[in-house]
Amino acid sequence: MTDNAFAQPAPSRPTPLTLLGTGAMGTALARAWLAAGHPVTVWNRTPARAAALAGQGATVAASAADAVAAGRLVITCLLDDASVGATLDGADLTGRDLVNLTTGTPEEGRDRAAWAEARGARFLDAGIMAVPPMIGAANSGAYVFYSGSAALFEEHRDTLAVPAGATYVGADPGFAALHDVALLSAMNGMFAGITHAFALIRRQDIAPKDFAPLLVSWLTAMAPMAHQAAERLDSGDYSTDVVSNLAMQVAGNTTLLRTAEEQGVSPELLTPYLALMERRLAAGHGDEDTTGLIDLLLTGR
Amino acid sequence: MTDNAFAQPAPSRPTPLTLLGTGAMGTALARAWLAAGHPVTVWNRTPARAAALAGQGATVAASAADAVAAGRLVITCLLDDASVGATLDGADLTGRDLVNLTTGTPEEGRDRAAWAEARGARFLDAGIMAVPPMIGAANSGAYVFYSGSAALFEEHRDTLAVPAGATYVGADPGFAALHDVALLSAMNGMFAGITHAFALIRRQDIAPKDFAPLLVSWLTAMAPMAHQAAERLDSGDYSTDVVSNLAMQVAGNTTLLRTAEEQGVSPELLTPYLALMERRLAAGHGDEDTTGLIDLLLTGR
Ligand SMILES: NC(=O)c1ccc[n+]([C@@H]2O[C@H](COP(=O)([O-])OP(=O)(O)OC[C@H]3O[C@@H](n4cnc5c(N)ncnc54)[C@H](OP(=O)(O)O)[C@@H]3O)[C@@H](O)[C@H]2O)c1
Ligand SMILES: NC(=O)c1ccc[n+]([C@@H]2O[C@H](COP(=O)([O-])OP(=O)(O)OC[C@H]3O[C@@H](n4cnc5c(N)ncnc54)[C@H](OP(=O)(O)O)[C@@H]3O)[C@@H](O)[C@H]2O)c1
Repeated sequence: MTDNAFAQPAPSRPTPLTLLGTGAMGTALARAWLAAGHPVTVWNRTPARAAALAGQGATVAASAADAVAAGRLVITCLLDDASVGATLDGADLTGRDLVNLTTGTPEEGRDRAAWAEARGARFLDAGIMAVPPMIGAANSGAYVFYSGSAALFEEHRDTLAVPAGATYVGADPGFAALHDVALLSAMNGMFAGITHAFALIRRQDIAPKDFAPLLVSWLTAMAPMAHQAAERLDSGDYSTDVVSNLAMQVAGNTTLLRTAEEQGVSPELLTPYLALMERRLAAGHGDEDTTGLIDLLLTGR
Repeated sequence: MTDNAFAQPAPSRPTPLTLLGTGAMGTALARAWLAAGHPVTVWNRTPARAAALAGQGATVAASAADAVAAGRLVITCLLDDASVGATLDGADLTGRDLVNLTTGTPEEGRDRAAWAEARGARFLDAGIMAVPPMIGAANSGAYVFYSGSAALFEEHRDTLAVPAGATYVGADPGFAALHDVALLSAMNGMFAGITHAFALIRRQDIAPKDFAPLLVSWLTAMAPMAHQAAERLDSGDYSTDVVSNLAMQVAGNTTLLRTAEEQGVSPELLTPYLALMERRLAAGHGDEDTTGLIDLLLTGR
């Protein structure tokens, strides 16, 4: 703060950056940074896809190594971790800040971090929680998990926050991918449930568009049960009252299965979770809630 | 409306009703109606559980038949459909309005409706979307699906709305159970996803209570995808843009599976949905979104 409380912050020039990979996601990212006034150097294996950005102000580099040489902040948004290795193979990463927006596993993130650090670069791995049309759009809810070098994140936080919200989840470079995959996996579970629910009503005289709002409200109301699971994991006490314990729930599951059968719907998306409940019940945990199923997935018992 | 716009509606006396079954849910319902001033006659197979309500103003009947004889509106909240049949076996249902708040399948609801109508009663089946502590509590979000006799529902709508919101979903007496089971099934899918997600982070230095808010926000943001599925079911057009089609999604699924493996988490809650995506892709629908999985659950192809 200056003495004058009404002074504007000194206008800092938008940080220049290099972006390797201008596929669907990379192109959306490049456009967002260009629109915010950042000088952007791009490179893409298939040159035509990068060239399309020149008209919007990007500098197109002739090679990945040239693109990396152009500036300190280097961002990769490629198909997979192998393509990151292949692309950066001949580049000099000394003194570079490498931010990898390519989807991968936690181990790939950790290995890539060690690889980058051995080449003299600071490293951040990332997981993008958005599809391209949400990038750079106001209030789209899009955000990106980052993990790895806290110093890199702090220094480039404002730049990283241009295309989508930036959420730092820890120094372990595997954590961005882990958070990304955990949320996508949970979403797949919810989508599996939605798929089964629509199948149940499909042969009946119930309009999907009348049913969808009920489904959305119900799932939205029940999602916060995850807070309760977190508390129970922390406390280690999974016991619950009698009206909602595992024994009661397993008894109620027969109604779900018989209804699927009546409606001619395969129970394949439903049965694994019910089977897990039964195994936990059989192991003597009938007076608990479902939190113990998390342990069961890890230990097998 | 009267001529005097400021006139209060004539205060109508709360409708008397009979409640058969005072287990955890029946007791919560009885208390809500008693608190709202309804004369309530109760009966329970194990008399002590009904007797506990006498102190709160309920009349305890000596038999189920006596309880049914006490008034026109008769509500059952028993373990299952078989216990409804057993309980009402010796009762005269002529001229009664029977509302069945016992959980069952759609077929059980339809059969029970035919059975009740053959005995001279109007019938509504119901599915309770709440646990007992939510009953009678303000703003708990608790509600009950009703289906069957529209005339019965209209006549007793205010009384039925006392313990929880009342949502009528059609004349088909199977529809309340179908809506109930569809929502519970979808919730189980979401809970399976949440279980897998917590298992993924469990062995890492990530606090469940820091992770839970990310999970809840993400699921809440993604639940409205059900509206899109409904639109696509209505239109029959499942095609989508290339960045989110089945072919792309199946490719991305390997990251989910490899991450589960890295974290030592059994993939059993994840694989059935991914397998369904692969089957649909193999059948030549790679350019569609996941809506076709609903059809696959019904037809097997
Ligand atoms: N699209 C989404 O909805 C979304 C959402 C979240 C995260 N992501 C992640 O963002 C990353 C990019 O996805 P995208 O949607 O942009 O995919 P895309 O449109 O298929 O683009 C893939 C990019 O990777 C490049 N590439 C592939 N193999 C290569 C190799 N061996 N060497 C060098 N470059 C190679 C492609 O170059 P060519 O043009 O030469 O083929 C292209 O630039 C992926 O990790 C993806 O998981 C995407
Ligand atoms: N609790 C919940 O969270 C919840 C949520 C939604 C829907 N529901 C539904 O509400 C209904 C009642 O559940 P609840 O929680 O109240 O269960 P509960 O506490 O176990 O009570 C079961 C009731 O059924 C009676 N009963 C069982 N078998 C009988 C028979 N053969 N003949 C006569 N009566 C019999 C029991 O009588 P006794 O006392 O003699 O055993 C008791 O009144 C169930 O259909 C349940 O699915 C419950």
